[in-house]
Amino acid sequence: MLAAFLFLLVFSQAYAQTDPLPSWNDGPAKKAIVEFVKTTTEKGSPKFVAPEARIATFDQDGTTWVEQPMYTQVVYCLERVPAVVEKKPDLKNVEPFKTVLSGNRAAMAKFTVPDLMMILAATLSGMTVDEFNAEVKKWLASAKHPRFKQLYTELTYQPMLEVMKLFRASGYKTYFVTGGGQDFVRVYSEQVYGIPPEQVVGSAGATHFGYDKTGKAILTKVPKLLLNDDSAGKPEGIHLVIGRRPYAAFGNSIGDEQMLEYTQAGDGARLMMLVHHDDDKREYAYGAKSKVGTFSDALMAEAKKKSWNVISMKNDWKRIFAFDNK
Amino acid sequence: MLAAFLFLLVFSQAYAQTDPLPSWNDGPAKKAIVEFVKTTTEKGSPKFVAPEARIATFDQDGTTWVEQPMYTQVVYCLERVPAVVEKKPDLKNVEPFKTVLSGNRAAMAKFTVPDLMMILAATLSGMTVDEFNAEVKKWLASAKHPRFKQLYTELTYQPMLEVMKLFRASGYKTYFVTGGGQDFVRVYSEQVYGIPPEQVVGSAGATHFGYDKTGKAILTKVPKLLLNDDSAGKPEGIHLVIGRRPYAAFGNSIGDEQMLEYTQAGDGARLMMLVHHDDDKREYAYGAKSKVGTFSDALMAEAKKKSWNVISMKNDWKRIFAFDNK
Repeated sequence: MLAAFLFLLVFSQAYAQTDPLPSWNDGPAKKAIVEFVKTTTEKGSPKFVAPEARIATFDQDGTTWVEQPMYTQVVYCLERVPAVVEKKPDLKNVEPFKTVLSGNRAAMAKFTVPDLMMILAATLSGMTVDEFNAEVKKWLASAKHPRFKQLYTELTYQPMLEVMKLFRASGYKTYFVTGGGQDFVRVYSEQVYGIPPEQVVGSAGATHFGYDKTGKAILTKVPKLLLNDDSAGKPEGIHLVIGRRPYAAFGNSIGDEQMLEYTQAGDGARLMMLVHHDDDKREYAYGAKSKVGTFSDALMAEAKKKSWNVISMKNDWKRIFAFDNK
Repeated sequence: MLAAFLFLLVFSQAYAQTDPLPSWNDGPAKKAIVEFVKTTTEKGSPKFVAPEARIATFDQDGTTWVEQPMYTQVVYCLERVPAVVEKKPDLKNVEPFKTVLSGNRAAMAKFTVPDLMMILAATLSGMTVDEFNAEVKKWLASAKHPRFKQLYTELTYQPMLEVMKLFRASGYKTYFVTGGGQDFVRVYSEQVYGIPPEQVVGSAGATHFGYDKTGKAILTKVPKLLLNDDSAGKPEGIHLVIGRRPYAAFGNSIGDEQMLEYTQAGDGARLMMLVHHDDDKREYAYGAKSKVGTFSDALMAEAKKKSWNVISMKNDWKRIFAFDNK
């Protein structure tokens, strides 16, 4: 009797101590996640999902780390321009490179899509995949965010890291499905998020197989877009790389809508969640009220209509970053 | 003395029982595989490979199952033509569909690449990915090989299934890297080879995201080639889907050469192997002496020059199929 009592005591304490989402406040968002994981993985559950079918997909920018005031990868590309120009001095007086070199941020803010495409092509191709990995790694080790004065890889959302861990501990394979560059995200995804390179689906440029001067086989990045992994491109990218429909999908913008729709169209239990940036004190607020940005009133209405779960960063998250004092 | 003898007897029997490659004859090919696995996974080995980096890639047609007298997927496409024509009767009198419907095998053998492309496009696109999966599954359940009178999924090479199991038991992720259709191979890869859909890299057509009549999100297969996963396309496809260089690669044809070169260009221990079809009694012999086919004298010379291991089906494999009496 005493033994049973002690067992229960120890057991319930152990259970309380192991709240898998300690950075989340209790509320509908946390509840939806915990219940989804339970209902799809508990033996005997009518909505049990076979271990091999457990796929959860996560957008990256704005869903698992800061995307303001600029996508991290765009910052990388702009900061790579001097190194590119050094190798190709002819570019020095050619736009948009000239403006980037001038450091005129107001002028850069007016870049058109073709301008940005030229910068992306110049900084994300022309090197081997190994050289590119080394360049990104080096940049990430020192570049810092203008507001938070932290390495970009420190600007991950602690609550979302906990969600990813919970899913993996429950037998889910966690995937990034990002509009960002697949090769860029792969450089740090394993170390920062525990997501291995082969589980990163992103916008992907082509590579070209060839040989270096010594006859060694190499892959060179070329400026040809194979997959634009945004909006309709997200479910298409999921099919290309994963070949299974996710059971859970996390996003934060209109570019994630189709991924959530595709997830929801499957049978059984499915979890669709949107991170809502409504905390300008601790991070940023850019929707649904804002006219710009990636969230909108229309997306909020869509979420309501389709019973998607909206995560309020302000109300649902006890802390946002690991370095927050809380 | 007797005890020692008994011990040795028991030990050698136990050893024999746990030979991970029981369908292989002792020889350089078997030895190369067993030693590679040992040297890359044994703690303290100077060529130890971290578990997360353990990637092994396998070609499919001719490397892990029969590819003669015709690729299984091509048989599928030809046999799907009547169903396609039933839905689009206009095709009945249009070549190459007319010839397929006539059943004239001699005429079909003369199809040009554009003819085959038309047949592939008509039978591999136009349906949702779920519909396609269901069609292939149904076909595989009854279609039989003309010579062996077995389901195609029974025509896997037992020695290669053992290799895949050995790699997985040693912490390797096993991938298909096939010139065949990614979506086609995914239908049976998990059940037949233990390779999940997300670990199949193959020639991939695009899909198009949209909605069915009820507003449900769907992906439709469209006739646009995204990845031609053959020759140089193999390392390019490996980078696109996996994002890591393999430590071991198995192929059987000139279409696998670049994958083996890319594998070999990595540092540390790497294993490059080619299956040589030299057993017309139990399977087929089509090289290196043959002038046609996917193996050639040139590939054999290349293998020698680059110290790739050639597997003789005749000499290295005790049995070829699980149904062989042996």
